[in-house]
Amino acid sequence: MINEQLIDPQSIVVVGASNNLQKPGGKILHNILECYRGDIYVVNTNQGFVQGVKSYPTVHDLPKEVDLAVIAVAAKYCPSLVKSLIQEKNTTAFIIISAGFSEENAQGAQYEKEVVEAVEAINGCLIGPNCIGIINVNHHSIFTQPIPMLDPAGADFISGSGATAVFILETGVGLGLKFNSIFSVGNSAQIGVEDVLAYLDETFDPDKSSRIKLLYIESITNPDKLLHHANSLVHKGCKIAAIKSGTSEAGMRASQSHTGAMASPDTAVDALFKKAGIVRCHGRLELATVAAVFMAKELKGDNMAVITHAGGPAVMLTDSLSQGGIKIPPIEGPRAELLRSKLHHGSSVGNPIDFLATGTAEQLGEIIDACEKDFDHIDAMAVIFGSPGLFPVREVYEVLHQKMRTCQKPIYPILPSVVNADDDIKYFLSKGNVNFPDEVMLGHALSKVHNSIQPAKESIQMKGVDVPAIRALISGFEEGYLPPQQIQKLFSAAGIPMLKEIFIKDTDELAKHIPDVPYPCVMKVVGPIHKSDVGGVSLNINSSLLLEKEFHRLMAIEDAKGVIIQPMLQGTELFIGAKYEQDFGHVMLCGLGGIFVEVLKDVSSGLAPLSEEEALGMIDNLKGKQILRGVRGQEGINIVEFADIIVRLSTMLRFAVEIKELDINPLIGNENGIMGVDARVRIEKEVK
Amino acid sequence: MINEQLIDPQSIVVVGASNNLQKPGGKILHNILECYRGDIYVVNTNQGFVQGVKSYPTVHDLPKEVDLAVIAVAAKYCPSLVKSLIQEKNTTAFIIISAGFSEENAQGAQYEKEVVEAVEAINGCLIGPNCIGIINVNHHSIFTQPIPMLDPAGADFISGSGATAVFILETGVGLGLKFNSIFSVGNSAQIGVEDVLAYLDETFDPDKSSRIKLLYIESITNPDKLLHHANSLVHKGCKIAAIKSGTSEAGMRASQSHTGAMASPDTAVDALFKKAGIVRCHGRLELATVAAVFMAKELKGDNMAVITHAGGPAVMLTDSLSQGGIKIPPIEGPRAELLRSKLHHGSSVGNPIDFLATGTAEQLGEIIDACEKDFDHIDAMAVIFGSPGLFPVREVYEVLHQKMRTCQKPIYPILPSVVNADDDIKYFLSKGNVNFPDEVMLGHALSKVHNSIQPAKESIQMKGVDVPAIRALISGFEEGYLPPQQIQKLFSAAGIPMLKEIFIKDTDELAKHIPDVPYPCVMKVVGPIHKSDVGGVSLNINSSLLLEKEFHRLMAIEDAKGVIIQPMLQGTELFIGAKYEQDFGHVMLCGLGGIFVEVLKDVSSGLAPLSEEEALGMIDNLKGKQILRGVRGQEGINIVEFADIIVRLSTMLRFAVEIKELDINPLIGNENGIMGVDARVRIEKEVK
Repeated sequence: MINEQLIDPQSIVVVGASNNLQKPGGKILHNILECYRGDIYVVNTNQGFVQGVKSYPTVHDLPKEVDLAVIAVAAKYCPSLVKSLIQEKNTTAFIIISAGFSEENAQGAQYEKEVVEAVEAINGCLIGPNCIGIINVNHHSIFTQPIPMLDPAGADFISGSGATAVFILETGVGLGLKFNSIFSVGNSAQIGVEDVLAYLDETFDPDKSSRIKLLYIESITNPDKLLHHANSLVHKGCKIAAIKSGTSEAGMRASQSHTGAMASPDTAVDALFKKAGIVRCHGRLELATVAAVFMAKELKGDNMAVITHAGGPAVMLTDSLSQGGIKIPPIEGPRAELLRSKLHHGSSVGNPIDFLATGTAEQLGEIIDACEKDFDHIDAMAVIFGSPGLFPVREVYEVLHQKMRTCQKPIYPILPSVVNADDDIKYFLSKGNVNFPDEVMLGHALSKVHNSIQPAKESIQMKGVDVPAIRALISGFEEGYLPPQQIQKLFSAAGIPMLKEIFIKDTDELAKHIPDVPYPCVMKVVGPIHKSDVGGVSLNINSSLLLEKEFHRLMAIEDAKGVIIQPMLQGTELFIGAKYEQDFGHVMLCGLGGIFVEVLKDVSSGLAPLSEEEALGMIDNLKGKQILRGVRGQEGINIVEFADIIVRLSTMLRFAVEIKELDINPLIGNENGIMGVDARVRIEKEVK
Repeated sequence: MINEQLIDPQSIVVVGASNNLQKPGGKILHNILECYRGDIYVVNTNQGFVQGVKSYPTVHDLPKEVDLAVIAVAAKYCPSLVKSLIQEKNTTAFIIISAGFSEENAQGAQYEKEVVEAVEAINGCLIGPNCIGIINVNHHSIFTQPIPMLDPAGADFISGSGATAVFILETGVGLGLKFNSIFSVGNSAQIGVEDVLAYLDETFDPDKSSRIKLLYIESITNPDKLLHHANSLVHKGCKIAAIKSGTSEAGMRASQSHTGAMASPDTAVDALFKKAGIVRCHGRLELATVAAVFMAKELKGDNMAVITHAGGPAVMLTDSLSQGGIKIPPIEGPRAELLRSKLHHGSSVGNPIDFLATGTAEQLGEIIDACEKDFDHIDAMAVIFGSPGLFPVREVYEVLHQKMRTCQKPIYPILPSVVNADDDIKYFLSKGNVNFPDEVMLGHALSKVHNSIQPAKESIQMKGVDVPAIRALISGFEEGYLPPQQIQKLFSAAGIPMLKEIFIKDTDELAKHIPDVPYPCVMKVVGPIHKSDVGGVSLNINSSLLLEKEFHRLMAIEDAKGVIIQPMLQGTELFIGAKYEQDFGHVMLCGLGGIFVEVLKDVSSGLAPLSEEEALGMIDNLKGKQILRGVRGQEGINIVEFADIIVRLSTMLRFAVEIKELDINPLIGNENGIMGVDARVRIEKEVK
């Protein structure tokens, strides 16, 4: 795992270094030489000196021990190289940039395995193979460019793909994004994105560590680890944005249950990110823009002043912010009038504050000062200032730069003239600022960050869920769909209220139970999975005559093993579902039942175990939530009780990974309470 | 209106030209001098020569007649200047870049009015005032930069804001966007965005004219003109993208009707754009990206090959395209294997086609050729190729450039390395290509263009709607909400089926009608606007006894003027609404009734008059559309009949602008037919 030798090595050897800067082994040595201050060695069979550094023909010939080895030779040489370095040079950190390992074929996978075993044996650290390397303040062991400006307040960026990391850097650099460190994990043979994040969490120092983390992830191999450390970092005051690509790869899986059809593997990623407090992005420009938002002071409140010298971008920004729920409130009164008097005739201060094409640097200073000190209801400023190409705008950008440092309120600069004011924008960025060249991208990213959910607390709400009883029940169950009586017992142990039902399998039992039947009642066939499709549900039975008739009809259905009788309830149909997603655990869904789940797919998701807060948040996200509060003369439901049931179920599932799919559909809710009416639970026991 | 003298002047005078290039009057002369080949004059009171051009102290002193005057002097001098130029120099085209007109104060508005009147009197042409000018192949009468590369196949760009035009140009130039002409209309004193578009439509030459139009609009003053000419251009094969900013300005208006509350003024813009076939954009970068998509060959079909040398961007592009409904279908079979054999070991051709970080220009050529010729099910290609900074990629971009010219299928280049391959990308753009630096922005823009709706035909479907009868009825109606009997007559003239109802205002009438009452029936109070809120609706009345009892209850409600009795229908509740939007005409809404309209706001919009195709498209856009087809054992409705009713209503409204708001809520539909049950119609007669 990550060690001091990787992060701050006293000595580095580059194995396979070259004089050719068009080769990775040449470029990486070049990049290391540019700023590294420790001892550097080179191993190269052919050369006396490589880029001015004395070269040794083999690692055996190296004169001293070496902390970190950066390896750029063919895969087949790597296992023996790594072993020699470990045994002879006490090397404990390795970055292997070469390809030809597990990503290529079985032979490569074997090389990779040997390397990992050797490194693990000494509790060492391996980055890669098949990666571009790492950058931090101590060394630039990376073979690509650009090498961004490093800044302790910049982002720690971890990428599952080297090329994508490069492209994200290029996008970020254009916006003025700063970085503190970059880790490209390649094949993640030993260390994946989650492991680097864990390291950043475990070594987090509130005085020194960066508070911005960016992730590019292609596959999440350890969701629990990612969740735990992301959550922990966010609770420590960090901001995390991540791309998880491959949302469309698996598509929707065919499944017997509603939940199965609605919860794609990507729903689990969404639910995990939400729970962890990670802002999910879907493209490089979006990630870089969100990261640039992170670099500003935090937006506390949702009232923005839009300051501009041109109408159009201010209107588009206002549109975009309003859509994201950020307000551009009126600015008026004597102080607004005072400000107006300092601006050119024709300026407006109502918000947007438009100080016209002829607006000056001094006036911008006055406006920002007024927003900072005089307009208490303003929480942040966006400043739009471009150039038609007539005269330089450096003076304006200088004022903006100064005010961004002295003001308490965040200021978001929108400098759109990437052609006309190219030099001035570069100057502005060189002072450590970011720029949002497109106001609508800013509006979108800022809304996204502002509306992102607080991470959940990492505790399980037991609520009296009887875990030993649940474990005992599940041990006794067979695989497949549980029969109704078993579901009743299971749910009872978790405190999930289910409608009382009478199970009847023949006419004798029917005769025996006739006195207990509550009218009006519902009778449902037991056996077939899709009861409705085979006409297996009979509603509103209000006499023993009808009861007997319907019993015989239902028992004649193919696969009928009996019927259940339930009282017929009035209320709103609800739905709860859960699906086990390999490694992630259970994705929970909730919604209104009936057409809301079947036609409108109006469901919210979360990752078990859920807190009451999370469950209430899920319910609040439903488009049909107003119906739960009561509408059109129809009474509402007890929302807190609905949340409570979701939480209990999620707690039960956390201790019952054998449950792969679960639907309660419908539950019937009214103001008095909520009762599950019908449920389906599928169990698989093989260890996965 | 726009004339030849504006577009291709034989002579230009710049009034207020200066030697100072930091002043508009200096820069505009400079820009004109750079490429204009006709006669140029300067009027400037102080200078003998300005930028090398002989200067005359007044327009009176000009030696010859002048076609076009570009004016950059204070507003107060403009009226007399324009008059002198008209009278003495036969000038018929004017571009006034000066500010200080109607945008500033009443005095300025007076100057503007005088100028317009003088120009109109000779049927001349005025661009501005308060604009940045115009650019076309003949002259660059604009005072801003950049001056983009002009290209007959580039975009015609019309902007309602000068500064925004500059910022859009700067964004576009970065993507390699070409322009054919740029019009900045400033205050639109005589010529607005719609008028320039009309000119482009009326002078459209299929052999010579550009097929790409871009608009930035802050207010639509003549929606009919915009609709007509945009629609006409799209039917001629043009592609139009537009920003209409200010979506949030007015917000939702308070209103009595559902439609009023749901249809914001911006809904009218959306509906207009849809009808015209305009792709609506909301930001500069989005507009420029959509315009760059327009510059590629047209995407016919929806199957894309993603060709890449790096995994990450290919996956993100696939995600983004899939979300937009564009498929990335598998590529397999012997020809796929043949292609694979030409690539480096480890490459994949399954789609995405990944030819690895070490992939060569030659291999890219092979891949593109295979997609063009061998893989018939592939309609287009996206090629992703960046650089980690090791070696130049010009050879690859050269192949890409060549193939983009020779292939029939469109190719979208994604060159993400805006830092590492900056020079090579600039070289690629200089050859006349565009670039999409962010694959997700491309995916979004391409989906948007691909999913944009064909423009509607510009004809009114009469369907036997009796216009004379409707006009006669409306002439006789009073203002305000129409009583039920009048609604019945109005709808009957339009062929809108309404449930038969009996209006009863006292006990005598009730007694008289008792034999005709259809049971079960519904009784509703007449008088109060919100019947349900006052308990004014009684359902399921199945006897004359109950009928009489409910009659007395309803008549006791405040403002009750009587009741209506209708048969009680079974079926699906539907909703149709319309709202008159100043200048746009009627925005129509449709949807399912009940909670769908009240809670879920699941409505579609269109602009009257609607064709059957448009109405069916609106219905198809509803989230709940599946319910209309029948679901959960509930029968569906006759969708064609629903569309027919929407069309009839829209036709009626086109001839009844006095109807400001109209709701039919609910209509009840089943497989046999659709009947309106309750309707509200509000009339205003004052001429607006």
